[in-house]
Amino acid sequence: MQLFLDYKAKLEPFILSYLEKKKQEFLHVNKWADDAFDRLKVFVVQGKMVRGGLVQFAHSLCGENNEDVLKVAAAIELLHSSLLIHDDVIDRDVLRRGESSVFAQYQDLADSKGMKETLHYGNSMAICVGDLCYLLAYDLLAEVDATYRQAIIQFFSTEIGKTVFAQMQDIDLGYVDTCTEDDIMSVYKYKTARYTFSLPMMVGAMVAGANKEVLSLLEKIGNSLGILFQIKDDELGLFADETKLGKPIGSDIKEGKKTLFWYYLMREVSNEEKAKLDGIFGNGLVSEDDIESVRMLLKEKGVMKKVNRKIESLADESRKLISQLDVSEDNKKVLLDLVEYNCTRSY
Amino acid sequence: MQLFLDYKAKLEPFILSYLEKKKQEFLHVNKWADDAFDRLKVFVVQGKMVRGGLVQFAHSLCGENNEDVLKVAAAIELLHSSLLIHDDVIDRDVLRRGESSVFAQYQDLADSKGMKETLHYGNSMAICVGDLCYLLAYDLLAEVDATYRQAIIQFFSTEIGKTVFAQMQDIDLGYVDTCTEDDIMSVYKYKTARYTFSLPMMVGAMVAGANKEVLSLLEKIGNSLGILFQIKDDELGLFADETKLGKPIGSDIKEGKKTLFWYYLMREVSNEEKAKLDGIFGNGLVSEDDIESVRMLLKEKGVMKKVNRKIESLADESRKLISQLDVSEDNKKVLLDLVEYNCTRSY
Repeated sequence: MQLFLDYKAKLEPFILSYLEKKKQEFLHVNKWADDAFDRLKVFVVQGKMVRGGLVQFAHSLCGENNEDVLKVAAAIELLHSSLLIHDDVIDRDVLRRGESSVFAQYQDLADSKGMKETLHYGNSMAICVGDLCYLLAYDLLAEVDATYRQAIIQFFSTEIGKTVFAQMQDIDLGYVDTCTEDDIMSVYKYKTARYTFSLPMMVGAMVAGANKEVLSLLEKIGNSLGILFQIKDDELGLFADETKLGKPIGSDIKEGKKTLFWYYLMREVSNEEKAKLDGIFGNGLVSEDDIESVRMLLKEKGVMKKVNRKIESLADESRKLISQLDVSEDNKKVLLDLVEYNCTRSY
Repeated sequence: MQLFLDYKAKLEPFILSYLEKKKQEFLHVNKWADDAFDRLKVFVVQGKMVRGGLVQFAHSLCGENNEDVLKVAAAIELLHSSLLIHDDVIDRDVLRRGESSVFAQYQDLADSKGMKETLHYGNSMAICVGDLCYLLAYDLLAEVDATYRQAIIQFFSTEIGKTVFAQMQDIDLGYVDTCTEDDIMSVYKYKTARYTFSLPMMVGAMVAGANKEVLSLLEKIGNSLGILFQIKDDELGLFADETKLGKPIGSDIKEGKKTLFWYYLMREVSNEEKAKLDGIFGNGLVSEDDIESVRMLLKEKGVMKKVNRKIESLADESRKLISQLDVSEDNKKVLLDLVEYNCTRSY
């Protein structure tokens, strides 16, 4: 969406100049400050910056143009970076946005120096760089206007706290054989929806002085938009074009992620098919043929139809909530376009 | 020191009630909130709480008794917990304060459920719990008085940022064969001294409204006291009573940590002895006999004497700086006792 490209174009130079300023402040400590900030200057601005864009969008939705909005948008992108950097260690994903994930970059560095146990070196360094991003995010949040400084900081801690607990649940689900649909939906809600959509829109609105009703509606819109986004994300992880997506297709299958696709599929297959699938899901060594056989089954067993109905119902819910918002028709149109985008995006 | 036991007795119930309050707030998310807070209620208050004590001490040194002091002291203990929880993942230390470290607790949990790859499960969960502690620390810091809220939060981000870069340097030093005395002293300063002594004393004084001169002196006192503390810590890691210390003796040798003891020893030994030591340092499988042979060499080669001279010179520097502080003789006495304690502690 063009609007989000515009928001990114505004936020990116702000983040880069903040990171450069901080790099200069820490340079005297040791060479790793230099190293970490240079990597962050690439990593943090690599993505679509949906969250930072949503902060700006919700802010303008409330008719404001407050200079704090970029600080808050940058802080959320930094917190997002912390979570991604640690998530890649946890999920052992060597690719992120088409580039080496942070732990993989440090592993490569260790390999190039002929060190031993380079994966552990990479993981250790990435834990540190993720930690650094938490510190930077709050450093930025501390600079917002005193009237809402405490509220914004505590709201971030509470919301990212929920994300962390959902991450723990998600990790645990990767290690167990079975779970409920509620477990999966809870991870979708707390690990993705609230933090990717509700949180940014709410803080953008908070900085604009929005009232409780607006905040509550944005929270709900964010929730249904976000769950929709996650389901689409899972679908793309199964069916997308790998080079476009920037990460390996089928990695959820390899990792044994408990997605809605997995859950519905397992309920529809025969015992024989289930036994075969149990050998595929969570098997790091699955072949392209195995992944293709999962894709075929998802279509044959009606899982794609079922998921698409779920997507349509979430889109309807989002549209209904958007119609209740007391904002201009142009702004409603942007939100409705966002619903459409979440339903149809291909990467 | 009795005074620090008193400070801990004041801080512990504050931290426990804060963690219980947060646990209740997050309970609706999923069962991992319950799980993580119950572990933190043991972990965070398990240590001597030197940092939380120093915040309170420096605060009273400045003649204040402001209710924010416990919030700041609790925040520093929570940040310390983040760093320790991640540090144990990085150093693969299964013991912390005589109990299982956090990753080891989750590894045990996974083992008890018959899961596979339980170490990775433990590490992943511990990364999350460490992240949570960052969020909680800033949640508490956001509650301090508005007059110094921004300054305190940004000071924490800057100082813990330095700790993180020193942690990266420390990780890297564990993988290389050689380094300079400056490298080691830089890790001592930024990974331990500033954050264990300078930071807590300075924020305790900041909350009491101390002036720049006092803050600058406390920073310097913290620096020399802290380096002293770290050298003693390394010594205890080689020579202490394991049950008293609560962690395995000789783990620095196994991990190949670049301590001052290692550095001085390597400069004094023959080529033959050096070859033998190269096989011992960084070898996870060293025997008790190997560790004893290192201890013998440290004494024979005059390393202990050299380190003790360094300790004495740091103690002298600390005493000189303390004499310059414009505080009561009783308070100076406490700081001088702290110097003494750092020189002579046995665990």
